[in-house]
Amino acid sequence: MTIPQPYLLFLGDVQDRLSAKTAQGVLDWRPEWCAGQIRLPGCTVDLGLPEMTIADAAAKGVKTLVIGVVNAGGVLPERWSSVIVEALEAGLDVASGLHTRLESFPAVREAAERGGRALHNVRHSDRTFATGKGTKRPGLRLLTVGTDCSVGKKYTALSLERGMRARGLDADFRATGQTGVLISGRGVAIDAVVADFISGAVEWIAPDAAPGHWDLIEGQGSLFHPSFAGVSLGLLHGAQPDAFVVCHEPTRKTMRGVAHALPSIADVIDLTIRCGRLTNPAIRCVGIAINTQAYGEDEARACLEAASAEHGLPATDPVRFGVDGIVDRLLTEFPAV
Amino acid sequence: MTIPQPYLLFLGDVQDRLSAKTAQGVLDWRPEWCAGQIRLPGCTVDLGLPEMTIADAAAKGVKTLVIGVVNAGGVLPERWSSVIVEALEAGLDVASGLHTRLESFPAVREAAERGGRALHNVRHSDRTFATGKGTKRPGLRLLTVGTDCSVGKKYTALSLERGMRARGLDADFRATGQTGVLISGRGVAIDAVVADFISGAVEWIAPDAAPGHWDLIEGQGSLFHPSFAGVSLGLLHGAQPDAFVVCHEPTRKTMRGVAHALPSIADVIDLTIRCGRLTNPAIRCVGIAINTQAYGEDEARACLEAASAEHGLPATDPVRFGVDGIVDRLLTEFPAV
Repeated sequence: MTIPQPYLLFLGDVQDRLSAKTAQGVLDWRPEWCAGQIRLPGCTVDLGLPEMTIADAAAKGVKTLVIGVVNAGGVLPERWSSVIVEALEAGLDVASGLHTRLESFPAVREAAERGGRALHNVRHSDRTFATGKGTKRPGLRLLTVGTDCSVGKKYTALSLERGMRARGLDADFRATGQTGVLISGRGVAIDAVVADFISGAVEWIAPDAAPGHWDLIEGQGSLFHPSFAGVSLGLLHGAQPDAFVVCHEPTRKTMRGVAHALPSIADVIDLTIRCGRLTNPAIRCVGIAINTQAYGEDEARACLEAASAEHGLPATDPVRFGVDGIVDRLLTEFPAV
Repeated sequence: MTIPQPYLLFLGDVQDRLSAKTAQGVLDWRPEWCAGQIRLPGCTVDLGLPEMTIADAAAKGVKTLVIGVVNAGGVLPERWSSVIVEALEAGLDVASGLHTRLESFPAVREAAERGGRALHNVRHSDRTFATGKGTKRPGLRLLTVGTDCSVGKKYTALSLERGMRARGLDADFRATGQTGVLISGRGVAIDAVVADFISGAVEWIAPDAAPGHWDLIEGQGSLFHPSFAGVSLGLLHGAQPDAFVVCHEPTRKTMRGVAHALPSIADVIDLTIRCGRLTNPAIRCVGIAINTQAYGEDEARACLEAASAEHGLPATDPVRFGVDGIVDRLLTEFPAV
C-alpha cells in the first residue's frame, strides 16, 4: 500500500505520550510529511505541530489523516468516527495502525465509498502476493534482526537510512510493520500476511533495484522467539540481505511475552548467517545496535565497547550515538557502492 | 475444524486418477469413514466404493459430502454446485480442499444457511488463534520434516499412526494441510494461517495430552525451502517435537517450484535439532523416510541401507516397507511409554 502525503496526525483524546507513539514515530522520522495535528477535547498530548481542523488541512493540501495512536487491543473507539468521516468528506484518505478496520464503522465505509477515498488499514494485509522465489535480485539489502521483539529494529533501519543519505548514499527504509508503513508511506505488516506468502511479500517490499541502491529492511521478531520465529525466517529469506545488523536490549531477561531466555548476540549472528545463506550465500553481519536507554553515558559506552570487542564489529546505540561506525563498515565491505 | 463422518466422496467429472488424489488419500487412510462415491456424467475415475445418490447417502447416515478432487488453481467449477446444494438440502455438511470457498456460490451459501449445515473450506483458516507460547506441554510429539515439499511427510505420519496403533500404542495423526484435515477430520491448513499465529495454531492442533500419548504431526515445506521455510520453522516451534523423522525424495534435483538444490539429510537433521531445541531441548531424530517409488526393489533397499548406515538411524520407505524400524527406535528412545 502507498499512503499519500502530507499527513494530518490525529491524536484522539489520549492522555499519555506512549499512546501517541505512532504519531511521534512518524514525526521523528518524517517531519516534512507532518503538516499538523488534530486533537479531540480531553487530549493532553501535544506534538508541537500546528493545530488544524479538517477544513484547514484540506485547504492546505493534506492528503491523509493518520490515526496516530495505539491502545491495548488496537481498538478504534466509535467516538472518533465522526472526525474520520469528516476527513473523508473533505477528500482526505485515512490511515490507521489499529486492529479495528476503519470500514467496520458503516458511516466510515460509506463516506469512503461515496468520495472514492482510500482507507489504509496498515495492520492488515489484503493484497495478494506470489510465493517467494529466492532468486537473487539486483540491488543491495540490509536487514535489521534481533535478539527479541521490540529491541530497536525499526529505529536502527531508519537511523541507517538517515545516516547513509547524509553521506550521499542511495538508501531507502523498507517497512514490514504497521508503524513503519505509516513512517515510510508504503510497505506491508508482514506478520499479517498469510503464512505461505511471508517471503514472497518481502520480495515485493524490497524488489529489484539499481546495483548501488541499499534497501534497509525493518526486521520483525527473532529467529529465537518461540511465537514469531517463522515470520523472522520468512522475512530473512525474502529479504536475502547482503548485510545485517543485530539489535539488542541488554537489560531484558526473558523474551517478550514468553518465559524463554534471550539468545546471545553471537547465537543470532550465527543462525542468521546459517539460514540467510539459502537466499544470499554472501550474507554477513556489519554491526550491532544496542538500546542503551537504561544506562548512563559511561555505562552505555562501556557496553558498546565490550560488544564491539567481543564480536569484532562496530557497535552503537543508533539513537544516542548515531550509525557512522556501521556505515563505515558497509563502505569497507561493499567498496563498489 | 471438525468434519463429521462418514463421508460421501464426490469425484465430479474428473478423468484421471491424479485429479482424485484427495479422495484416494481419504480412502487409503480412512476406509472406514468412506461410505460411498458420487460421480457426474463423464467421470472416468472409480475408487471402487459403492455408487450413491445424495438421497442414498442421507438415508445411510452419511454426514459429509467431501469434494475429493484437486485441479490447477483449486477452482470449484460452477457446474458442481447443484450436487452440493442437494447435499446440503439433504442435511449433509460439505467439505472442500479447493481454493474457491464453497460459500462463494450464493446458492450454496443460502442452502447451508437455510439448513444450518456447515461448509468446511479446509484450505482456509477462519479460526482465531493465540500466538504461540513455547511452553512445554504434556504428552509426546513426533514431527515429520523434509528436505523439500511433497516428499512424503503426510504419508509418513499416517504410516506411523497405523504402525504404532497396530502395536498397541496410543497415537494420533495431527493434520496441518488440507488433505490431512480431510483424512483426519480435524486440523488446520497451517500455511493459510496469518503469519503471526503459525506456532500458536500448531499448539492448538497438538494440545496437552496424556503422558504416554503420541501426536504424529504432519510437517510442511522444509527449513531449507526459500518460499516456505517460515511456515516450517513456526510449525517446528509450535510442535515442540520430542522426536522427528526426516522425509526425502532421492531423485529430486531442485526444490519444488524454485531453482535451489536440495539440502542433505544431515543438514536437515542438524538445523531441525538446532532450531527445535528452542521449545524442546531434548528433540532428537528417530528415523529417515525415503520415497523410493522411482527405484526397483534392490535399488530401494540399497538406498535405505546406505542412508541408515550414514546417519545411524532406521531408514525406510513407509509405504513400501512399513515403519517397524522407526517404531522400534521410538520404543527404545522413549522406554517409559
